[in-house]
Amino acid sequence: MTIKPSDILRKKRFGGELNEAEVRAFVKGATDGSWADYQLSALLMAIAIHGMTDRETLSLTLAMAKSGEALDLSDIPGVKADKHSTGGVGDTTSLILVPLTAACGLKVAKMSGRGLGFTGGTLDKLESIPGMNIDIGVGEFKDIVRRVGCAIVGQTHSLAPADKVLYALRDVTETVDCMPLVVSSILSKKLAAGADVVVLDVKTGSGAIMDTFEKSEKLARDMVRIGNLSGRRFSALITDMDQPLGMYIGNALEVEEAIDVLAGRAGGPLLEVALELGAHMLRNAGIAPDVESAKRMLSEKIASGEGLLKFAEMIEAQGGDPRVCFDTALLPKARRRIDVPAARDGYVSAIRTSDIGSAAKLLGAGRERKEDALDLSVGIVMKKRIGDPVRRGDAVLTLNAGERSDVVGAMTLVNRAISISEEPVKAPALIHAVVE
Amino acid sequence: MTIKPSDILRKKRFGGELNEAEVRAFVKGATDGSWADYQLSALLMAIAIHGMTDRETLSLTLAMAKSGEALDLSDIPGVKADKHSTGGVGDTTSLILVPLTAACGLKVAKMSGRGLGFTGGTLDKLESIPGMNIDIGVGEFKDIVRRVGCAIVGQTHSLAPADKVLYALRDVTETVDCMPLVVSSILSKKLAAGADVVVLDVKTGSGAIMDTFEKSEKLARDMVRIGNLSGRRFSALITDMDQPLGMYIGNALEVEEAIDVLAGRAGGPLLEVALELGAHMLRNAGIAPDVESAKRMLSEKIASGEGLLKFAEMIEAQGGDPRVCFDTALLPKARRRIDVPAARDGYVSAIRTSDIGSAAKLLGAGRERKEDALDLSVGIVMKKRIGDPVRRGDAVLTLNAGERSDVVGAMTLVNRAISISEEPVKAPALIHAVVE
Repeated sequence: MTIKPSDILRKKRFGGELNEAEVRAFVKGATDGSWADYQLSALLMAIAIHGMTDRETLSLTLAMAKSGEALDLSDIPGVKADKHSTGGVGDTTSLILVPLTAACGLKVAKMSGRGLGFTGGTLDKLESIPGMNIDIGVGEFKDIVRRVGCAIVGQTHSLAPADKVLYALRDVTETVDCMPLVVSSILSKKLAAGADVVVLDVKTGSGAIMDTFEKSEKLARDMVRIGNLSGRRFSALITDMDQPLGMYIGNALEVEEAIDVLAGRAGGPLLEVALELGAHMLRNAGIAPDVESAKRMLSEKIASGEGLLKFAEMIEAQGGDPRVCFDTALLPKARRRIDVPAARDGYVSAIRTSDIGSAAKLLGAGRERKEDALDLSVGIVMKKRIGDPVRRGDAVLTLNAGERSDVVGAMTLVNRAISISEEPVKAPALIHAVVE
Repeated sequence: MTIKPSDILRKKRFGGELNEAEVRAFVKGATDGSWADYQLSALLMAIAIHGMTDRETLSLTLAMAKSGEALDLSDIPGVKADKHSTGGVGDTTSLILVPLTAACGLKVAKMSGRGLGFTGGTLDKLESIPGMNIDIGVGEFKDIVRRVGCAIVGQTHSLAPADKVLYALRDVTETVDCMPLVVSSILSKKLAAGADVVVLDVKTGSGAIMDTFEKSEKLARDMVRIGNLSGRRFSALITDMDQPLGMYIGNALEVEEAIDVLAGRAGGPLLEVALELGAHMLRNAGIAPDVESAKRMLSEKIASGEGLLKFAEMIEAQGGDPRVCFDTALLPKARRRIDVPAARDGYVSAIRTSDIGSAAKLLGAGRERKEDALDLSVGIVMKKRIGDPVRRGDAVLTLNAGERSDVVGAMTLVNRAISISEEPVKAPALIHAVVE
């Protein structure tokens, strides 16, 4: 028997708890179009107002994960792991930890997204590698993971289609930031992508969707709890996004920094967070007994060059030019470099990170509309981090601009984004919490 | 500056009070289609959950009243009065009090509706009078009111069009019974219809939309309070719908009973409620000093035959055959009459009135779908009221059936609807409350 939309709407309107069959009827209605948009959006608003219990959120997550064709990785030997970030600026950990954990024996079949708002997207970054193909069929994708150990591709259209429908409606009805809807949206895609082990990177701070630690912690706890109820193993790290994670922001620039890290030429917060996330993946997969030994394993793969080789192998398998790993001059380069100087002596006290991301977007690294073309070469190179002393006229960052860059707009944004104080400032913590 | 749907949705999602400009933007969006259905329905759901303050409800009522072409009656001399019922069964007070109050000097320009669900509609009833035209342009409508004193027509398409859009969405998103939405829907149409004085008949009981006295009282109080804030004069009566009001249910049947009442041949609860409502209209219009003397005025117009003559005049002005007022045999008659007997000796203790209305619908007096054709001749004649003693085999009511009547279905419903107890039962009160 099908449950009528009216019964479900009425129940939720008055704050009732939807049972599994009711949640499934809703998700089916979103997927097959049997519910009208105005009924879906009315229920989304009722959910946004009344919230959802864990039971409801789990039902919603599972129903959405099953709404399309879930990826079956069971015929690939080994433990399959995945990683998800809520999105940040200069956050290219995926490009580091995917080959690095694969070099340790993990199987990483990663489906990534495009840049959204002021945050970057792994697919866009990968496309700055000449020849790289991220639009690969399921058969070949699994084949590369089986053979190489890792691959990063775009989401298939049949992956959790209910989420696509509901996300589009949430976007225009002010119900995006409803916790159970965020949780089920993220988790359903991760479950449908087939991994046994998932590590979540929940960003917090001025460059994160969740701008306060409290919201980030709630999201992390909710996702880990609901994720573990689904039968897979989930952990989450809450990591800092009060300044860009790496020093490079922009597509080719971030690939270059990832290669520098994998080659052992660069370190700092980007490496640290990548190691921490990768170590949790290895530990949860049972490849390392604990996080500390897992980090040592990963560091050794940098020192030995195996991580970089694995990245080159993956790039080659996906049609890209693996030589970029050994000669980053092969990546597209911006035509102009414009240093942005500090306005006075002092210490960098704050970096409005979303503005840095938006400035990179104005240069051409991100999209205003879905159909906009990117300039993969442009972006921003940070020269200073929070706490660093600066002298008036020192370059705080460098704009890497192209022909279509809005340099004036970007300049205005970055100038507004950087605060300098007279008093020394402590650098913010990098890993705020681990939620297991 | 236009206010974005997203701002309004977000404010109401978190329980904020919308200001007048925001409410107007919402109503404009509904009227001109600049808001999508899914945004309107999301806001309706948020309103249904959080409710609305008086200020919001008044803003919504006024904005909806102004969403189309409001009727301007100011060039008709005299006080213009209107009446609205929340809908009942065997409730044909409009056909009695409109000509009766007009005979006392009131101007009544009434826009009525069709039957809805199990309740009857004044327009359908009037159409059982041969030649009667309820689809009359504004100019002619006002002309008849000026000349005759009263007219009853269908709503124009341009009357409060926002209400039509919102009502259709409420109907499919389980937000019909949200008090501020009910209030603004009813009041906006009454305000747009241009009367100075409005008396509301809020039904309560088993044949009413509001099935408990508490709900009916809340609706009545809300409507009178918001209505008076609009600058017009509103009163409400809460009247009984625990049994059909008149003895006749069905279109031609109800016209016949109205004529019988106007001719002084029939009395009882239908007359009583019509007098009470009509008296409040006259008193509020300043034509009578108080309700009691107003009732006497109305009764005299029955005794003198002036009320019936006024009805005949109105019918003639609207193209109908006025001879029905003096020979009800000219009204369409059902072919078959089937008495439904009492199952045992005792007293009629309850009448599930909505089931009686639904039974009349199955006979052909109402519509299942909007496009269904009616059989204007069919219906039900009640023979007993609550409290009446009955003997096994006595007719409790008579089905008046036509060719397309579902007699078996109607019989099943009416048998279920009538309860008989061994103990004597008191008849329910007729006028439960007056709200001014």
